[in-house]
Formats: sequence, C-alpha cells, structure tokens
Amino acid sequence: MEKFQMCPKFEAAFELLGKRWTGLIIRSLLTGAKRFSDIQEIIPNLSARMLAERFKELEEHGIIVRKVYPEIPVRIEYELTEKGKDLEKAMDEIQKWAERWT
Amino acid sequence: MEKFQMCPKFEAAFELLGKRWTGLIIRSLLTGAKRFSDIQEIIPNLSARMLAERFKELEEHGIIVRKVYPEIPVRIEYELTEKGKDLEKAMDEIQKWAERWT
Repeated sequence: MEKFQMCPKFEAAFELLGKRWTGLIIRSLLTGAKRFSDIQEIIPNLSARMLAERFKELEEHGIIVRKVYPEIPVRIEYELTEKGKDLEKAMDEIQKWAERWT
Repeated sequence: MEKFQMCPKFEAAFELLGKRWTGLIIRSLLTGAKRFSDIQEIIPNLSARMLAERFKELEEHGIIVRKVYPEIPVRIEYELTEKGKDLEKAMDEIQKWAERWT
C-alpha cells in the first residue's frame, strides 16, 4: 500500500487562503496595486480593522507588499508579489469547483 | 472601480480543505476506495478519533461516501464521490503553488 507524506505546506496554504476575506482581497489585487481605501470600496462589508489584519498576514506570508510613495500626501499601496500573483490559477480552480458543486 | 461579490462558496471550500489531514485523506482516496484501517496505514500519524471526525465532515459535505458491504465480516469502505474526485485539479494546483513558494 502506498504511503503518503504529511504535507504541511499544502495545509498551511489552504489555512491561509481559507480565512474569511483573504480570497477576495487577493482577487481584487490581481487587477493591480490598490490603496487601503480602494479595497474598502471594492469590498464594502469588510471592516478597516479586519482588512488591516488580513493585509498584515498576507504581508508576513510574502503574498503582498506594502509600498510607500514619498509624495505629499504620502501614497501607500498594496500589491501582490510574484508569489501572490502565482496564486491566480489555483484560486480559479477552487472557485470553479465551488461553483460547480455548491 | 470594479466591485467584487463576497463569495461564501469559495471561502467555505478553502475552510473545509484547509483543515488538518483533510487534503491527505482526499489524496489517498484519489487512488480508490479504502477501508478505515487502510487510511490509518497510509497516514500513520493520524489518530482514529481524528480520522473518524474528518470522514464525518467529508461525508456531510458530499465529498466522500461510506459504503457498507454485507459480507461476513462486514466490509466498510470510504470512497470519493464525483464532487470529491473533481477536487483533484484544484488540489494539485495548490500543492504546486505551495511547493514552488514555501
């Protein structure tokens, strides 16, 4: 009988991406860098506190990067890293599965 | 600015699949129906209690089905439904992403 190795990477990825709002935040950044207020406009039900928390998690996981432009007033944008952009295909597949079956 | 609908289906799918052991259990069933003890052999670190819990969740979500064969002794096997088998591609994509980036 075949043996499977436990794959903590796989589970960690699903755990992160399964958190409430995370999928939507990533999807809204797939169309380009956004400011905090842009995301709030795109996802009106998402509170500022929750968005800040999600941004922090995604930054810690190297999925987004926070860019500060030294203008007046200062402009801060969040954008997907290469690692973050590379999630598109996997997210599409889960989305399609969820739509087909639920 | 584009607006996104909250997609609870997507998040529910990720939440279910991100649970500890769930991915491995599904992957081990992708090669065919298995008995409880087969899965325990394939995933030695998974306790019987936890496996029973995961099987129950997956059954409730229509991802696996429990089949009872009226033999002596009775044979009970767990197998993926069509909905469950259809997860293969999505799971592969997440797996590949996780391997590329972590």
